[in-house]
Amino acid sequence: MSERGEIILGVDPGTALLGYGLVVGNDEPLALEYGVLSTPSSERMPARLLKLYEGLSTLLRRHAPDVVVIEELFFSRNVTTALSVGQARGVVLLAAAQAGVPVVEYKPAEVKQAVAGYGKADKAQMQEMVRILLNLDEVPKPDDAADALAVALCHAQTSRFHRAVEQR
Amino acid sequence: MSERGEIILGVDPGTALLGYGLVVGNDEPLALEYGVLSTPSSERMPARLLKLYEGLSTLLRRHAPDVVVIEELFFSRNVTTALSVGQARGVVLLAAAQAGVPVVEYKPAEVKQAVAGYGKADKAQMQEMVRILLNLDEVPKPDDAADALAVALCHAQTSRFHRAVEQR
Repeated sequence: MSERGEIILGVDPGTALLGYGLVVGNDEPLALEYGVLSTPSSERMPARLLKLYEGLSTLLRRHAPDVVVIEELFFSRNVTTALSVGQARGVVLLAAAQAGVPVVEYKPAEVKQAVAGYGKADKAQMQEMVRILLNLDEVPKPDDAADALAVALCHAQTSRFHRAVEQR
Repeated sequence: MSERGEIILGVDPGTALLGYGLVVGNDEPLALEYGVLSTPSSERMPARLLKLYEGLSTLLRRHAPDVVVIEELFFSRNVTTALSVGQARGVVLLAAAQAGVPVVEYKPAEVKQAVAGYGKADKAQMQEMVRILLNLDEVPKPDDAADALAVALCHAQTSRFHRAVEQR
């Protein structure tokens, strides 16, 4: 962990848009950088996955995060979406393993609970809480970047809780 | 394409067992090598995907195939399986893209049609046809390796057909 706090890379995997959010975990968490990696649907899937892999590898090199955080496999009704998200997810996990960075997963309800204090918070509530917790002027856009920041914040809050317990 | 015929790497992606089969596409197709890459379920997914990636990269370097062949995304009832297969599939497509090898996909029914001459052939019929077409003494084991050889053979048969049409 760096002295200024744990550097957390949250990822919201997808092949068209992959959201990422880098957060420094402290009593007042700080957003270092957030955004999306995008790939055009006109390109073939292997080339798109390669672009995502290269973008992620660059982020991992540049920020040397202490941890990569991602939502757990979720049950989606749409199997085609699940396969597509799975492909992007595989590339994320691979890039993290190659960089020697541990991956931590949280369930969607855990992310909502940690960030909004309510396991069934809706999208707008979550985005507003991300904005407030990171002291941003506006809600981060696009949604995929906000989702990635949310999962990073979930880890920051959870780590802070564990540190507090250990110090008692 | 090498002088002795197109070198085809068929892959049947999975995280516990990833089947592969290398076939030289000729009038009499030849199996160069087949088997499975396996990863223990006791390890974490990023480490397992990294092992699959390294195994695939080694195969790609050693055999320098002209093409990687894989079954198209299929509709599975089980969303968790779809996500898991998707992760392994993402790693396969990435490794192929990094090696600069094109990926060709076939539908499951196309593979059955090309290999067994019947789009609804069952597993035992398919495995026996793989054995016959590759002139093997026994049905290739495990099933994942036989499935990978089947998809490679599908491409070999399809390419042969296209060559025959072009030569007319």
